Amino acid sequence: MDVIKLGLGGFGTVGSGLARILDMNSERIAKRLGKRIEIKSVLVRDLNKKRAFDLGPDVTFTDDPAVLVTDPEIDIVVELMGGLDTAKDLILNAFAAGKHVVTANKHLLAEHGLELFEAAKTHSVGLMFESSCAGGIPIVQTLKESLAGDEIIKMFGIMNGTANYILSEMTTKGMDFQTALADAQDLGYAEADPTFDIEGFDTAHKLCVLIRMAYGVDYPLSEIPIQGISSVTPMDIEFAREFGYRIKLLAHVMKIGDKLEAGVHPALVPYTYLIARVGGNYNAVRLEGNAVGPIMLHGQGAGDMPTGSAVLADIMNLIRKINDGCTHPDNTGFCNQPIMLADILPPEQSESKYYFRFTVADRTGVMAAITNSMANHGVSIAQAVQKGEAGAEGVPLVIITHETSAENVYAMSEEMDAMDFSVEPCVKFRIL
Amino acid sequence: MDVIKLGLGGFGTVGSGLARILDMNSERIAKRLGKRIEIKSVLVRDLNKKRAFDLGPDVTFTDDPAVLVTDPEIDIVVELMGGLDTAKDLILNAFAAGKHVVTANKHLLAEHGLELFEAAKTHSVGLMFESSCAGGIPIVQTLKESLAGDEIIKMFGIMNGTANYILSEMTTKGMDFQTALADAQDLGYAEADPTFDIEGFDTAHKLCVLIRMAYGVDYPLSEIPIQGISSVTPMDIEFAREFGYRIKLLAHVMKIGDKLEAGVHPALVPYTYLIARVGGNYNAVRLEGNAVGPIMLHGQGAGDMPTGSAVLADIMNLIRKINDGCTHPDNTGFCNQPIMLADILPPEQSESKYYFRFTVADRTGVMAAITNSMANHGVSIAQAVQKGEAGAEGVPLVIITHETSAENVYAMSEEMDAMDFSVEPCVKFRIL
Repeated sequence: MDVIKLGLGGFGTVGSGLARILDMNSERIAKRLGKRIEIKSVLVRDLNKKRAFDLGPDVTFTDDPAVLVTDPEIDIVVELMGGLDTAKDLILNAFAAGKHVVTANKHLLAEHGLELFEAAKTHSVGLMFESSCAGGIPIVQTLKESLAGDEIIKMFGIMNGTANYILSEMTTKGMDFQTALADAQDLGYAEADPTFDIEGFDTAHKLCVLIRMAYGVDYPLSEIPIQGISSVTPMDIEFAREFGYRIKLLAHVMKIGDKLEAGVHPALVPYTYLIARVGGNYNAVRLEGNAVGPIMLHGQGAGDMPTGSAVLADIMNLIRKINDGCTHPDNTGFCNQPIMLADILPPEQSESKYYFRFTVADRTGVMAAITNSMANHGVSIAQAVQKGEAGAEGVPLVIITHETSAENVYAMSEEMDAMDFSVEPCVKFRIL
Repeated sequence: MDVIKLGLGGFGTVGSGLARILDMNSERIAKRLGKRIEIKSVLVRDLNKKRAFDLGPDVTFTDDPAVLVTDPEIDIVVELMGGLDTAKDLILNAFAAGKHVVTANKHLLAEHGLELFEAAKTHSVGLMFESSCAGGIPIVQTLKESLAGDEIIKMFGIMNGTANYILSEMTTKGMDFQTALADAQDLGYAEADPTFDIEGFDTAHKLCVLIRMAYGVDYPLSEIPIQGISSVTPMDIEFAREFGYRIKLLAHVMKIGDKLEAGVHPALVPYTYLIARVGGNYNAVRLEGNAVGPIMLHGQGAGDMPTGSAVLADIMNLIRKINDGCTHPDNTGFCNQPIMLADILPPEQSESKYYFRFTVADRTGVMAAITNSMANHGVSIAQAVQKGEAGAEGVPLVIITHETSAENVYAMSEEMDAMDFSVEPCVKFRIL
């Protein structure tokens, strides 16, 4: 039986997951493809580091990227090292050597995806990246193929397991953010520097990749408003629950007329939505197509085996293309045409319902001042609740609004934060 | 721009949905493919029937299948007529003429899929059928490509929107089965003859198709135990709710050692599962891969637009393959190898927890007789509840068991049904 040989760039969590699956499911894979898959060489930074999975004596470890690129026996390079420059060089050199590439690197795709797509096209090779978004959930394939004929009206998703784990723990156990984060770090769900996960950057990278697959346009990372979860408090979670919501870190993109509007925000999700019930380190993406209607995909967004499964799907997809006689794969899902800049709705014009929590001095006239300011800025109130005893730190006043523009919201909240009755700056989250 | 021309077999709900989407999303489709898609000819039974969507003057209507097959301008034949013989002939003749085929016909695929796959292979053409299972949910593609490297440990799904609508109405409104069915018929969700939907046959057809995509083997329709929902009563739904379950019509398949065990049954699903909350005419499929872990896909399982969206995805997938230079597509996902018979676990050996509702005379010793019979047949009781006042029609006695084999369950329930205290045959459903 023919053998397809892989060169692995990186051998951390996902790499060892991939190796484990290749070993565990080798019979099934061979039956599916009529070919075997073998790892031939692995590029690592430190040749002496102990590995999570023993690849056996036939696999070469190297710290020289050229070994993967120049070996004529290697058909597919699998980039799992992360980071930007070295990963990008490896991929571009692999393309130039006529090799297909599978990558899990959302950060690289978000920053330099357009250049990578162009280079893959130039060399008529495949660039696959299912594992870059939402781990084992087949969202890239779904956007590229299954919903190819649909206009995506909106898409939103929970795409970071670490952030979702922390919010879930805060919700079910009443923990504060710092405690939940420390727990997640103890369990290995959060990294020592959790910035990318909790501040929404990782989610934004994925959103950027998925917008390209859904619309065939580039929505630059720098244009995506990003709000992380470190400002979410148990009090907000509790208020949200009283109003029938759960707080989730959501990526969203929607069509507003001919423009796109995207962002990453903690948002209040009605508890009647399935996506509100996505717990722990799970991910979910909800799409709405103008033909298919609403679709939701749910699964594990990270981890060695789920992400390894998505990497393997890409490898098998490429081998099938080779088997089928394909000579110039369409990597973008838009005929490999150059990817143009998205027509972007200015963020200040984006409309949403909002949750506000003001912390105010408990005195006469405060509610009137706030509601007047809202009225003056065109922000219409749906529900309001004031709780607790007066104290040095003020009392919380929570207001749920009707749909209004971000512009109005920011003008109003700036005005209120400057008032002498404001004990703390107001907290505001979008409502789905 | 190049044009790909379709010949449509049938122009009912799905056909007019497809035509509407082709019209509505034509710009997007052209951008995706670098080609336009046009319907050239439509095969119908009655040339004089009024159509739900006006195709314009350039489309030929015909009642002669040969028109679609012999026209050299038609690249892809789309079979949406349903039924067995005529549809099969159309597809086989299209293959012989070198045309690719897209079909939504689960019944035909379940009965004659193996022959169709062989014929497509012989002629090196594509056979695509995403729309045959769960409407707009991309489950065929997910099994064939995204989870290609996973061993599917188990899969279960709600794959008939009519049955789910009826059960949902019974659950939320306390309706009986006949009233909910009549409502579904009034709304167009159920056909005049609803047998295929409510007796589980349609679900079994889909299960048969999906088992092939998941395992590359044939699990003949005749080997799948099928139980419909017409025996489900509001009383059972209420008891299930008290124990923390919802009743859903589920298709399931799982690996038991090296064997497969499949079936279609109304089942009690724990309310904590997302799939228990799939309401109305929605569908959902939950898979568990040995690498990816659990994945759930949720969406609309029927309707002109969702199903039309899946048909279009298949058409676009075929056109992409043509664009990419593919010459011999892998339709089965297993290299077009002959599909062997599944190694099937005899249904009587299948294990499950069960819900029993006995209707018994309200007299001393009945509970003891039933629990003794259960013990004698190795059926272990988890929970039991007896309700209501004695009357001419007996009282309900509900028992939830631990895992036990179907063999034990059937022997025990036959014994109990023969007892003089049994007012009605006992009702039994599996528990997920």
